[in-house]
Amino acid sequence: MGDTARVPYGTKSARTVERYTIQVASVLEAHEVKALVVACNTASALGLAALRAHTALPALGVIQPGCRAALSATRSGRIGVIGTRTTIASGAYRHSLFLMQPKVTVADAPCPLFVPLAEEGWTDHPASHLIIEESLAPLKQHDIDALILGCTHYPVLKQAIGKVMGPEIALVDSAHAVADDLADLMPEVVRPTFEDAQQQLRYLVTDEADRFTEVARRFLHGFPIERAEMVDL
Amino acid sequence: MGDTARVPYGTKSARTVERYTIQVASVLEAHEVKALVVACNTASALGLAALRAHTALPALGVIQPGCRAALSATRSGRIGVIGTRTTIASGAYRHSLFLMQPKVTVADAPCPLFVPLAEEGWTDHPASHLIIEESLAPLKQHDIDALILGCTHYPVLKQAIGKVMGPEIALVDSAHAVADDLADLMPEVVRPTFEDAQQQLRYLVTDEADRFTEVARRFLHGFPIERAEMVDL
Repeated sequence: MGDTARVPYGTKSARTVERYTIQVASVLEAHEVKALVVACNTASALGLAALRAHTALPALGVIQPGCRAALSATRSGRIGVIGTRTTIASGAYRHSLFLMQPKVTVADAPCPLFVPLAEEGWTDHPASHLIIEESLAPLKQHDIDALILGCTHYPVLKQAIGKVMGPEIALVDSAHAVADDLADLMPEVVRPTFEDAQQQLRYLVTDEADRFTEVARRFLHGFPIERAEMVDL
Repeated sequence: MGDTARVPYGTKSARTVERYTIQVASVLEAHEVKALVVACNTASALGLAALRAHTALPALGVIQPGCRAALSATRSGRIGVIGTRTTIASGAYRHSLFLMQPKVTVADAPCPLFVPLAEEGWTDHPASHLIIEESLAPLKQHDIDALILGCTHYPVLKQAIGKVMGPEIALVDSAHAVADDLADLMPEVVRPTFEDAQQQLRYLVTDEADRFTEVARRFLHGFPIERAEMVDL
């Protein structure tokens, strides 16, 4: 489910993100899901604790899996994190990395313009390159060797981010790590093939179903989405 | 009142903008205001008719005043309009200009990246210049001599837009025209001085009151906002 009527979450306050996260989860609970994945970094950073207090279902966020992936990728122990203004301000990645490995050094930077660039498809434009370069400049001084792409939208800009950071920096996207966690949690759920997925997946949105299918195709590298269902919140 | 929890409106559907506009107006009605100004172009384009059906108060939008200002500014009768994706798709400016002056030629273009650039303060950056240049390119072929800045945020980028369009194009901001309309409508309301205004104005927001005062200062050229009050929607 995508809360397309109220995106972006990354500029909202903790209290509002918490409230919205629980509202969205309640819709999914009514659909009798077996587990919840909070696939938004901001909602994971700010809403997961409240969500776990609210629901009896297993609820996974993207922060911890992303941190684990970054800790396996780094050799120097110097990790960078980029995310929305709210995710970075929350310190969720910094805190989670510290709990897993206290010796790690973390450098972070909010990149608020990356979401609109990704949504509008400016993935390979000189203007995007300039914005990415300036946004990542504070990180380049810290000699990191792994960079967590701490927002669902940033992998769309992965190539451009890689060009700015250089090939020796591992770019960490938490999606695979979350999928692994979910498989561990629910081994009875066989991982679907792409063909199965197309049959079984349902997409709920709170606004602009048509634009969602268009943007989603870009995010999913052409994987077709037949239609999205509208939900009122 | 700024609906900061649910901005931006410019990417939302007509139905959602209508609903949100009426919700916000209802809060202001409960504060016993004497008139409503819908200062958001998208809400004016999509929500004004529904709002007028909902309320007995006089309700002004920004579209008609902006069109009137553009019609006085143009000599050639070729007018450009820029706005959010939803404002442009609605055809509200095109329609309103046609009703006022059927001989006018209108060229329009959505500029979805201008809002985040303005909000983040990238007003005079080479990246912004590139984005503005590319977004306005479709308009430059139409030999317009007036350009309506059809979004509250765009006047913040006025200088940069002027550099791209050239000094012979009049840039039309509807704010003054709306203020004139309001003064005509309510002549008993003496226009306040800046000092009076600071005493009398109240700001309501639905989220992030602190960030609102910070961004507002940039939009109001340093005019100080003491504090904003939080409202739950």
